[in-house]
Amino acid sequence: MIKAISHLGVAVKNLKEAREFYRSVFGLESSEPIIGGGGTVRVSMVELENVTVELLEPVGSAGPINKFLEKRGEGIQHVCYEVDDINAEIGSLKAKGIEALGEPAPGAEGLSAFLHPKGTHGVLVELVQKE
Amino acid sequence: MIKAISHLGVAVKNLKEAREFYRSVFGLESSEPIIGGGGTVRVSMVELENVTVELLEPVGSAGPINKFLEKRGEGIQHVCYEVDDINAEIGSLKAKGIEALGEPAPGAEGLSAFLHPKGTHGVLVELVQKE
Repeated sequence: MIKAISHLGVAVKNLKEAREFYRSVFGLESSEPIIGGGGTVRVSMVELENVTVELLEPVGSAGPINKFLEKRGEGIQHVCYEVDDINAEIGSLKAKGIEALGEPAPGAEGLSAFLHPKGTHGVLVELVQKE
Repeated sequence: MIKAISHLGVAVKNLKEAREFYRSVFGLESSEPIIGGGGTVRVSMVELENVTVELLEPVGSAGPINKFLEKRGEGIQHVCYEVDDINAEIGSLKAKGIEALGEPAPGAEGLSAFLHPKGTHGVLVELVQKE
């Protein structure tokens, strides 16, 4: 069952500039960048009171953030919903004809999987079972 | 000062179908649709524990949701951040060279104003001062 939004993923071209923008313009600090997504993305977290904004910069020329930037430019790339039991959720979605992009895999927040926007009214949805 | 995310705006082509999708696939109920945006949009709210998802269907052929759907198709259209004092916030942004799209105007949640994505690393940002 989906309960809450865990984070919002925002694709940026230059993480250093984006972090400086969020700090100086919105007054929002962000975490020191880490490498994620199997080495394809540099990530920094902006923690708001209720939700985290994940700033995502591509590393190298492969990976989904690069593809997103090429196609659409900077902007909101995905929303991540928190679930209690990701395997039960993926099973239930599959029974309804919605397929995940691969099996749930460990990430920064816990086990997570993505749903293709074609099956979700245009929204790239990540589901996470927090640890 | 930006404190929290108030809602996420998601553009959909057909609100009835989208509401049915969120209900049957994600188990999320949504509010009865209302007309907003000066008559250009039909809105239904999906209340999660920490954030609201606003499903936005265009009404007629004018308005920003129509333009968004034509250009990009269905998807996340904007993020709304909650602020304490919208006039102070807009003044502070203006001093930093960031212009709002028009003056703060009353909406469903309170006084709100939008910032053009060109000035915010690609994200259409709404700011709201809740009543």
